[in-house]
Amino acid sequence: MTSSTPAKYAIGVDFGTESGRALLVDVATGHELASSVYKYANGVIDETLPDTGKRLEPDWALQDPNDYIEVFKQTIPAVVQESGVDPQDVIGIGIDFTACTMLPVKADGTPLCFLPEWRGNPHAWVKLWKHHAAQPEADKINETARARGEAWLDRYGGKISSEWFFSKTLQILDEAPDVYDAADRLLEAADWVVWQLTGVETRNSCTAGYKAMWSKREGFPDNAYFAALDPRLEDVIDAKMSRDIQSIGSKAGELTEEAAGWTGLLPGTAVAIANVDAHVAVPATTVVETGRMVMIMGTSICHMVLGDEERLIPGICGYVEDGILPGLFGYEAGQSCVGDHFAWFVENCVPASYEREAQVRGIDIHELLEEKAAKLKPGESGLLALDWWNGNRSVLVDVDLTGMLLGATLLTKPEEIYRALIEATAYGTRVIVDAFDDNGVPVNELVACGGLPERNKLLMQIYADVTGREIKVSASAQTPALGSAMFGAVAAGEEAGGYASIYEAAPKMSYLQEEAYKPNPEAQKVYDQLFAEYVTLHDYFGRGENDVMKRLKAIKASARKS
Amino acid sequence: MTSSTPAKYAIGVDFGTESGRALLVDVATGHELASSVYKYANGVIDETLPDTGKRLEPDWALQDPNDYIEVFKQTIPAVVQESGVDPQDVIGIGIDFTACTMLPVKADGTPLCFLPEWRGNPHAWVKLWKHHAAQPEADKINETARARGEAWLDRYGGKISSEWFFSKTLQILDEAPDVYDAADRLLEAADWVVWQLTGVETRNSCTAGYKAMWSKREGFPDNAYFAALDPRLEDVIDAKMSRDIQSIGSKAGELTEEAAGWTGLLPGTAVAIANVDAHVAVPATTVVETGRMVMIMGTSICHMVLGDEERLIPGICGYVEDGILPGLFGYEAGQSCVGDHFAWFVENCVPASYEREAQVRGIDIHELLEEKAAKLKPGESGLLALDWWNGNRSVLVDVDLTGMLLGATLLTKPEEIYRALIEATAYGTRVIVDAFDDNGVPVNELVACGGLPERNKLLMQIYADVTGREIKVSASAQTPALGSAMFGAVAAGEEAGGYASIYEAAPKMSYLQEEAYKPNPEAQKVYDQLFAEYVTLHDYFGRGENDVMKRLKAIKASARKS
Repeated sequence: MTSSTPAKYAIGVDFGTESGRALLVDVATGHELASSVYKYANGVIDETLPDTGKRLEPDWALQDPNDYIEVFKQTIPAVVQESGVDPQDVIGIGIDFTACTMLPVKADGTPLCFLPEWRGNPHAWVKLWKHHAAQPEADKINETARARGEAWLDRYGGKISSEWFFSKTLQILDEAPDVYDAADRLLEAADWVVWQLTGVETRNSCTAGYKAMWSKREGFPDNAYFAALDPRLEDVIDAKMSRDIQSIGSKAGELTEEAAGWTGLLPGTAVAIANVDAHVAVPATTVVETGRMVMIMGTSICHMVLGDEERLIPGICGYVEDGILPGLFGYEAGQSCVGDHFAWFVENCVPASYEREAQVRGIDIHELLEEKAAKLKPGESGLLALDWWNGNRSVLVDVDLTGMLLGATLLTKPEEIYRALIEATAYGTRVIVDAFDDNGVPVNELVACGGLPERNKLLMQIYADVTGREIKVSASAQTPALGSAMFGAVAAGEEAGGYASIYEAAPKMSYLQEEAYKPNPEAQKVYDQLFAEYVTLHDYFGRGENDVMKRLKAIKASARKS
Repeated sequence: MTSSTPAKYAIGVDFGTESGRALLVDVATGHELASSVYKYANGVIDETLPDTGKRLEPDWALQDPNDYIEVFKQTIPAVVQESGVDPQDVIGIGIDFTACTMLPVKADGTPLCFLPEWRGNPHAWVKLWKHHAAQPEADKINETARARGEAWLDRYGGKISSEWFFSKTLQILDEAPDVYDAADRLLEAADWVVWQLTGVETRNSCTAGYKAMWSKREGFPDNAYFAALDPRLEDVIDAKMSRDIQSIGSKAGELTEEAAGWTGLLPGTAVAIANVDAHVAVPATTVVETGRMVMIMGTSICHMVLGDEERLIPGICGYVEDGILPGLFGYEAGQSCVGDHFAWFVENCVPASYEREAQVRGIDIHELLEEKAAKLKPGESGLLALDWWNGNRSVLVDVDLTGMLLGATLLTKPEEIYRALIEATAYGTRVIVDAFDDNGVPVNELVACGGLPERNKLLMQIYADVTGREIKVSASAQTPALGSAMFGAVAAGEEAGGYASIYEAAPKMSYLQEEAYKPNPEAQKVYDQLFAEYVTLHDYFGRGENDVMKRLKAIKASARKS
């Protein structure tokens, strides 16, 4: 590009848990010109099904694919208009999605839940990443793999999660074989939205590798394994999925006339292969090398580390060669309840007197709690929590674990509980950091992005103190969308004014903030003591010594049925 | 009494944690004519000392003796006026108090905290029953007793509580030897208020037996034991207390001119020996025989059972021969956090949306929570709590234990936590019931009194379901005050129109409600499972397997000092 050519732009679209967001970015500088958010009309469907009002079982979490199309229709025209950019200078689109978020569709891509005959069946809808009702299926997947000595199991820390693709697939087959039969295709919502944009069905290497047991060298597990799971599942890959997995950084296709109509962009605009919100954020936080863990901090935390060697790490979510960046192993871990945790607390546990105080002072309730909690010293509350309100993803990989709070007295204040919940999520992060570090994938520095780092400085300082590591923060407030825009620029290619690879795009388009969070040695000392207590309870409740949490869940399930 | 003699009346004065109450009762029928409450102006002093604003350490809880005098001045004239009774027909007064609630006074009865030179010293004030800062002293009392093989230790379940008389006394000596030296007398607030009424210093057998290691047959521990605790304490009984212990049911003295002036009663009116709120309630709930446990349910629960044999029961608060009724062994256990627990929850954990809902519907927030919680089935919340927000009195006798909640998810609702806290206190009661039942003091039926049974029917049903026992409820809403009035009538004696003994008074003056709470067999089944989980956690955290609660308290104490 020279100064005489007009500036080129890329759009990243980030599909989150509650909403979708488009970001329009200057390809040469990474400058973010405009962004727009669409809140899903049907949000997270976890109580009753739309239209029919059918009550869902506990641990279910669905979404409506129509909300995803609305994201394109609402947000892309909005960013084009707001930025004043000429649509012909928008050279590429990338998307990223939560994962595994999957759905059953017809051969032409129509979601089963769009069809009147299936609309009342919960299994016809999108199963959101945090749909946790497929634990029996995950157990069966793990047992069967162990029994057959499947080597791929080790890549995933020895345990497949109930959140992943085949757990959800097997749940459909178990509970709604008619839906399974009616589904011509089963796919990630990430790939489905790219299909809607391009008219071409593609499968990305990131979700295939991290969520569907695929690897670049070995492909999917054998048909014999799937047959051992369930004879009806033997041919699932060839019948309803695809072995043609395309690498991150490739081009999926070009915008169709119809999708151009939705978005106001030009037909033929390059569209990148789908990506996952956490993974796409890594290059967007400047991280393209080993030793630096990226934490995408929002409702949950995803932890991403690059490694130059293949390492087995117990309890991590998985590693995929070329899964984040070509030429490196991408390691992923996760905590399933972080921002969600504080939202739950504020909604359910903060007394009216605090709400009034926040109102009088004209501040947000989170801000008030942060202010009060920041006045406490480490250890001063006497509280300790296990951050398992939404199960434990790493390193225990167990959705049936539940939250615990210990140390309460009659003088315990809401801000003390709030701080204890923050600290608990920090201990959860440290367990993950230690698992990497102790197993040959070094973590020397943390780089944070997502909504939480901007909103909660106390939380960031606690994470630095608890992990004993410096935390830097992405300069972009919308890193996944920025990463998707970067991949959009790569899909467009050098000739169109984009980039030949993500390695070229990253140094041009991504930045960090100057300010960083440094561990405070005094706080570290106290947190080391508290972390030791956390680990004892983590192992007692999480590793089988006392399975009370699971027994309570079983009693709960039986009480709800009676 | 014949119908020609005018009716006679007795007044019971019940000193609680937050307020004092007088009740005027018809001696012949137990009919309650009038009652009046005075809320202590200085309440529970647990943050800063009045006047000086001096900050108190954690676990402190003090009171102002002037508040007790105000109870007499405010409430007795009020009940006399409201009832329209002629003061000359009021034949006796009885009082009951929380215990151990003790204070240091001068030889003439003046509390040290009334004197300007001592007013700024927290140790000069009344130490309320729930003052929990004397744990190191309790530990020393227990260790010294064990080392010396003191036989009396077994009467108290093998462990003296930090709440009791000599723990508090030793704390004064340890931390404020000048206050100890300046105190001519150390005594229960119960005995102190009787002294203020009668001008005579007396000591009642109930607090001496339950809180000060005295027994009818053996008296106090030897001076050599006290010397072993601390040489300065050797002579504490003879120097600052008394070996002249008077039995419950005796007359302490008669109203002085001054006290007659405060109360509007006649000088010379009989005053009963002081009693304890829980113990005095037993005959007032009709219980004068073995096999029926009385539960006084308010901020805390006291459990009283009568036995005809001497039994050792691990972890109960103690047994005292003639301690509740002459001729029987009175066994006492306790839970230190019940009504307080729900008050804490409502103040600190109930969201504004619930407060608004209660307001709109014009109901109390407790009522709203009870209604919502009552819709849940046993086990449906998946939650389990340990009810140790204020330590554990029975059967672990450990104030350093703290509260725990387990099983929380992102769908957990406030009413589920509320119900789990109620259930936890019910499991705590069952541990106590089982301890009696398993050790030869049968508990076939529960009889409840106090504020909670009237206010919370859900709680009562849960207690019946969890313990598997029918619960009857006192007809009087103010049982301790009624019991005190009964003892006032006994102090007056038969000739004055009262009774010769409490055995004669009980059948005439006390009643039960007709309605009772019967265990629901379906609920019992689920609660049996949940109780088994409670016991596992109770023992894990409470019997030394994981002392995390104590370590957190130590870290907390050190954080507050730094």
